[in-house]
Amino acid sequence: MNPSPHRYSDAERAAISRVIRERRDVRCFLPDPVDPETLAHILACAHAAPSVGLSQPWRFVRITNPDLRARIYSLVEQERLRTADALGPRRAEFLRLKVEGIRECGELFVVGLVQGGSREIFGRRTLPEMDLASVACAIENLWLAARAEGLGVGWVSLFDPLALGELLGCPAEVRPVAVLCVGHVAEFDPGPRLAIDQWRQPRPLTELLYENRWPAGTP
Amino acid sequence: MNPSPHRYSDAERAAISRVIRERRDVRCFLPDPVDPETLAHILACAHAAPSVGLSQPWRFVRITNPDLRARIYSLVEQERLRTADALGPRRAEFLRLKVEGIRECGELFVVGLVQGGSREIFGRRTLPEMDLASVACAIENLWLAARAEGLGVGWVSLFDPLALGELLGCPAEVRPVAVLCVGHVAEFDPGPRLAIDQWRQPRPLTELLYENRWPAGTP
Repeated sequence: MNPSPHRYSDAERAAISRVIRERRDVRCFLPDPVDPETLAHILACAHAAPSVGLSQPWRFVRITNPDLRARIYSLVEQERLRTADALGPRRAEFLRLKVEGIRECGELFVVGLVQGGSREIFGRRTLPEMDLASVACAIENLWLAARAEGLGVGWVSLFDPLALGELLGCPAEVRPVAVLCVGHVAEFDPGPRLAIDQWRQPRPLTELLYENRWPAGTP
Repeated sequence: MNPSPHRYSDAERAAISRVIRERRDVRCFLPDPVDPETLAHILACAHAAPSVGLSQPWRFVRITNPDLRARIYSLVEQERLRTADALGPRRAEFLRLKVEGIRECGELFVVGLVQGGSREIFGRRTLPEMDLASVACAIENLWLAARAEGLGVGWVSLFDPLALGELLGCPAEVRPVAVLCVGHVAEFDPGPRLAIDQWRQPRPLTELLYENRWPAGTP
């Protein structure tokens, strides 16, 4: 089988594999500022993502007001404690994990999902969650582009979306789905943080790849 | 401001920017087979995605049975017609668009989302849709890795998820969220297909980027 004539060079493919392999969900940041051009670049990469029916349902709110940042931290901290209570036997262990870097990171964003949209946005009649999928693709693009710039990104989802929407004055059809911490880091972890912290171990791909039918008894 | 010491080389960053810029949602495929090693590579890239609480809620079902492929095509065709009816005045225009390449593509996958998971999966107590976001990040990784290999990917979301789940024997907690067409292509479009086909024009990032507060009157 011949490779595609549209295939990138070996060096290019190695760079792309590298960034996919080395991307991390980061919670420990250095406070150094992020270069504005670099910030514009990673946002442009997010905006180049696919979206259902070309709907581009992502909105990025850059948080530059320190008081607002403190209020966002406070919302996340509230939910962190509620999550801990809901975890039952692993409560204390969870509370020892570092799960966000909102106060330290150089740049903070809230990402909003515009829900619904016009009826001309096809591809979501039976799968309305496709608009969220588009936003997630945009965030993954930003994540990879940031890693290549040597910047860490953490996607924090520990917050009450209604309370965060109210804080930012979001209209009713907008749901905040991410608090994104972006910034410089001392180092990148060699693997997923939750595995290093012994919270949970990842499963190999072979267990999650099937052929034609769902194997009996496996979710 | 100094760049990060963890920044990749100029050539590596250019490759990563290139693939993000050149990724396309593909609907026209050549029937040539996909090299198994390349297929394994792009699936490994998907599996390297971030996931909420390290839950890895993605499952990939490779469709190798031609009869099953025909049945999947048929489900998508049914939903394409229903979508056309729901579009009202743009019905005929929609029906002229090519929206999937299920019968021609070299490889076909159904991606399933495992919903819920154990209570130890934190980060989705208030945002249960984070499991879908994880699956979307995995698909975006696969999409980018495939583009670098010169392969096209199309994410088809025109189907009734319950009917598709039944066809594959999915357990109740699994929701199929993507039919992925993967394969060789004659060429890659210079921009988003729906823009080329005059269905919808994309908006610039500047309109979707705010600071601190949601601007009045904008969704």
